[in-house]
Amino acid sequence: MDDSRSQLYQRDRQIEPVDESWIDRAAARQLTLTKPPGSLGRLEDIGNRLAAIQRTITPNVGSKRLYLIAADHGVTVEGVSAYPRQVTAEMIDNFLSGGAAINVLGRLGEIDLKIVDAGVDADLSRHANLLNVKSLRGTANLSCGPAMSRIEAKRLIAVGVELARAGRMDGVDLLGIGEMGIGNTTSASAITATLTKEDPANHTDRGTGVDDQKLNHKIQIIKRSLALNQPDMADPIDVLAKVGGAEIAVMMGIVIGAAINRIAVVADGFISTAAAALAISLCPNARGYLFLAHRSVERGHAALIRLIGAEPIFDLQMRLGEGTGAALAMHIIDAAARLLSEMSTFSEAKVSNKS
Amino acid sequence: MDDSRSQLYQRDRQIEPVDESWIDRAAARQLTLTKPPGSLGRLEDIGNRLAAIQRTITPNVGSKRLYLIAADHGVTVEGVSAYPRQVTAEMIDNFLSGGAAINVLGRLGEIDLKIVDAGVDADLSRHANLLNVKSLRGTANLSCGPAMSRIEAKRLIAVGVELARAGRMDGVDLLGIGEMGIGNTTSASAITATLTKEDPANHTDRGTGVDDQKLNHKIQIIKRSLALNQPDMADPIDVLAKVGGAEIAVMMGIVIGAAINRIAVVADGFISTAAAALAISLCPNARGYLFLAHRSVERGHAALIRLIGAEPIFDLQMRLGEGTGAALAMHIIDAAARLLSEMSTFSEAKVSNKS
Repeated sequence: MDDSRSQLYQRDRQIEPVDESWIDRAAARQLTLTKPPGSLGRLEDIGNRLAAIQRTITPNVGSKRLYLIAADHGVTVEGVSAYPRQVTAEMIDNFLSGGAAINVLGRLGEIDLKIVDAGVDADLSRHANLLNVKSLRGTANLSCGPAMSRIEAKRLIAVGVELARAGRMDGVDLLGIGEMGIGNTTSASAITATLTKEDPANHTDRGTGVDDQKLNHKIQIIKRSLALNQPDMADPIDVLAKVGGAEIAVMMGIVIGAAINRIAVVADGFISTAAAALAISLCPNARGYLFLAHRSVERGHAALIRLIGAEPIFDLQMRLGEGTGAALAMHIIDAAARLLSEMSTFSEAKVSNKS
Repeated sequence: MDDSRSQLYQRDRQIEPVDESWIDRAAARQLTLTKPPGSLGRLEDIGNRLAAIQRTITPNVGSKRLYLIAADHGVTVEGVSAYPRQVTAEMIDNFLSGGAAINVLGRLGEIDLKIVDAGVDADLSRHANLLNVKSLRGTANLSCGPAMSRIEAKRLIAVGVELARAGRMDGVDLLGIGEMGIGNTTSASAITATLTKEDPANHTDRGTGVDDQKLNHKIQIIKRSLALNQPDMADPIDVLAKVGGAEIAVMMGIVIGAAINRIAVVADGFISTAAAALAISLCPNARGYLFLAHRSVERGHAALIRLIGAEPIFDLQMRLGEGTGAALAMHIIDAAARLLSEMSTFSEAKVSNKS
């Protein structure tokens, strides 16, 4: 573990914590804008945080990019999902031809959508627009041993950090993360149980829609995995390698990389938030750069939200993944930035202030 | 009352109720789209309702218009607001020069924003882009008698119906309503207390931000108004005329007119929802065309939401008005329409369905 302990703190040292004094400066500007104080509610809080992230009272998140990271999971052989494993690869085709939910929302929200293959069990080399970062065709079965090696976990985190840096290079102001991977709620629930030290049964749900019997089986598989692998909650890379997934590793890296590059990043739902929780556990300084998009109906999500201590922006009872919640949240985050930056002040508009 | 009783039912007879069978047809299509069943949560419900409103399983709300209706209130002489009365007129300048919150959100959401003067206490004839429908410079003081005559109330409802029809003529697919009027939470609370037959204290809040003393005074003013005017909860036009406002009347008309023209309409916050509640009380068939944008922090809003029986789309603790919540909700409603209309089916995308 010592190898990564130093690297671990090195990553966090690369992150400048968000300068909270900008929140006060932004809040002072909010009071001058033509609206009753506080009347924009959480939009004001979001705007103020963006001000702190970007160190300006006129933040701008006009350029948005969402990384959709896909990977397969060895644990699917245990029958933990309602859909067959090949759906991950089939959905890649769907993402690249524009027919999936995230494509629709990406077009509406003018979001630059990048599809990343972090470990899909198929030869997808025919797709020129697919970003291929995989070294394995899916993780190993986490109920029989670690999902991946510690070295692979660290490599995939580093890939995520690079993807965030590429976003910075391309002038992206707001990053989103989303995922696709049949079997990955099993990983996310195992991570949640580890980080909370609670019974996996409390944090395991139906994923894409398993029935009661399969849900019970899924809980047993997670329990077996935790008993066998003994992930160390104090070592997020250990947790990731033993019970995580390749897409979770890359998303974890993106959250860290966004913070290193001082870009706001929004996590989608349950699995994305599991990645974000691991990222913050590894690099606590990343916390200030992170937004949670929505409250998923997956029961494990609530525990991760409490752990991170951020309130999701909305709750539309979604549980699709792909970054669909993040895409909608990006519009609201953009709204918050524009309100703070573009609204007239009372004096500019010659409007009488509170009597 | 007999005069309007017949007119009242005539209006409602003009509305074709939403054909609920289209909800089933849309729900059947949702099951064929490349996502786990139900995984888009409330976006699916919203999409299905749009399908029923438009009578197609591929609804489209690409063309959006928001009517922001402004008016003054005689009750402001009682000191019920934190801001002086002239702010209504001053904000008209702000809306027309693009500096208010709703302008920012309208630009972001590509919403056609129309500003309507339904009774502002100022000569605003210099503004070519302001739609002037007023006959009075604000309502009378509702704590000393009716806010307006029954004839004026009906005229303003008819104006709203015409505005919705104009939307239809211009190819608008989705209407929003919002308001500006110093003093209008007093009206909205009086309407809420009347429709619920409950103590006004339960439904009165700080509006633009009055202190405890002014809040208590505001409650007393509303109680006095209700005792004096005795609005008849069974006669929505009576309620509107006695304790309503000109902007509330026009918004009420827009909700009715949207339904007559089979256009979806989204109400913003507390005051807009009060107008919508009166509209539905007058024309129950309008109910199926209405969306509630967000849950306002104004305490009276919850009672109106229960009365209407629709769940607001989001809760960002907003209380600004102007249609700001409606503007954000329009993006989510558009997302719901596009998901239903544009997503690929399992067979189109050659994705394996649930095993």
